Amino acid sequence: MGTTQLESVPEPKYWHLKTVLSDALDSEFAVGEILPNERELAARFGVARATLRQALEQLELEGRLQRRRGVGTTVAPPRVGVSVGDPGHSWPGTGDAADAWQPVDSHQAVPPAAVARLLDAGPDEETHVVRRTRMSHGQPLAAELLYIPAGSVPGLSAIDAPGGPARARTVLRELCRLELEGQDQAVELGSARADDAKELDRLPGSPVLIVTTRYYAQGRTAAVAVATYRADTCRLTFGDTGGGVQLLAG
Amino acid sequence: MGTTQLESVPEPKYWHLKTVLSDALDSEFAVGEILPNERELAARFGVARATLRQALEQLELEGRLQRRRGVGTTVAPPRVGVSVGDPGHSWPGTGDAADAWQPVDSHQAVPPAAVARLLDAGPDEETHVVRRTRMSHGQPLAAELLYIPAGSVPGLSAIDAPGGPARARTVLRELCRLELEGQDQAVELGSARADDAKELDRLPGSPVLIVTTRYYAQGRTAAVAVATYRADTCRLTFGDTGGGVQLLAG
Repeated sequence: MGTTQLESVPEPKYWHLKTVLSDALDSEFAVGEILPNERELAARFGVARATLRQALEQLELEGRLQRRRGVGTTVAPPRVGVSVGDPGHSWPGTGDAADAWQPVDSHQAVPPAAVARLLDAGPDEETHVVRRTRMSHGQPLAAELLYIPAGSVPGLSAIDAPGGPARARTVLRELCRLELEGQDQAVELGSARADDAKELDRLPGSPVLIVTTRYYAQGRTAAVAVATYRADTCRLTFGDTGGGVQLLAG
Repeated sequence: MGTTQLESVPEPKYWHLKTVLSDALDSEFAVGEILPNERELAARFGVARATLRQALEQLELEGRLQRRRGVGTTVAPPRVGVSVGDPGHSWPGTGDAADAWQPVDSHQAVPPAAVARLLDAGPDEETHVVRRTRMSHGQPLAAELLYIPAGSVPGLSAIDAPGGPARARTVLRELCRLELEGQDQAVELGSARADDAKELDRLPGSPVLIVTTRYYAQGRTAAVAVATYRADTCRLTFGDTGGGVQLLAG
């Protein structure tokens, strides 16, 4: 059986082109400006379209370019520092950054297998799923699904609020009755699912940063949040000197 | 001036293929197994090579596949949780995870503009640059450059150790004499520079997670570390319940 062969050249052609393009972005283009189309750019730099596209993808990974639905490829503004770590620990919906998160709705569903493992839930066990969006200056930064087992919100009545943001707030309010004992977080690379991509104004499959937060209460995992952050516009900040959404150099 | 057009179809063909391939990985392949070559795969699923390649790239972003120099595309093991946040705060080279970081060398150089801004350094001001590698089970996880202004290590003598790991350890030992007042961290997406890619056994331009740590002492930024983590094998963990390198559920 054959293998998917890779180029073994240490510095492929698109890599050099990327450096040249990066310099051109600095000297000739302003933030928000739309790049010429691929045909024009390929002709200008004397490269094949495929090579150009690879270089553009690199620059997108590095946050220099943004591909936007229906607009094209634009020069990206510097990434925004978004506070994610919370040394004081608080339940979702409380704390300083609470107003940046907007509850969208809440329903009940079987969580993905990885989340079910963290919650120690059975394979077909439904949890509450609260959907929230994090906004900054009118732009979506992140879409979150918060998985809350029924046992973590025992006082919740089904008739309190049937759906929408009101239901989401009711579930979060019930969760806050538990005493939060700790939380931990993990960040990893992912690709935007179609529904998240739409909410974040990205193309499906765009690289995203996935932040998984485990909330501990009553000696077990009481809730798990899976937040999908735009990797093009966000740098995630952790630590004791930041706070809220802040601009960080470079 | 034209624009770089993007497909506006919400679920492109490669997206569906990705789901099909993902199921095939679960049911037919073992971790570490080498995939058939692109021609065979494209024929099997009845898609164009370009479509197949996009789907493979998605699965690589999601950590399902690894492209390895000289080997091909293999089924990736689950990502490893790597502790990055340090609630207790410690200088590099001290603390629990110290033995996972191996000092490589130290030289003097002008830091990149973004680092110089964080250090409040002049445009042509050289700093010490300590290079370290983080290993786990014989595999490289991260490559780090630690920028230390001369003012943070005033007792350092040029003749103590001229270069190599011994020099790196000498610089770190001097840095530890300062009282650490705090630190903060940021995580963002990047693409592997050629030198980091080589050290991490990746192709140049592979997506990586870049962790920037600012160390505060004497009321200012005393050092800045820029660590490049493999995005294919690592999930970065922050918080008070982890510690060291640990396996987290998928």
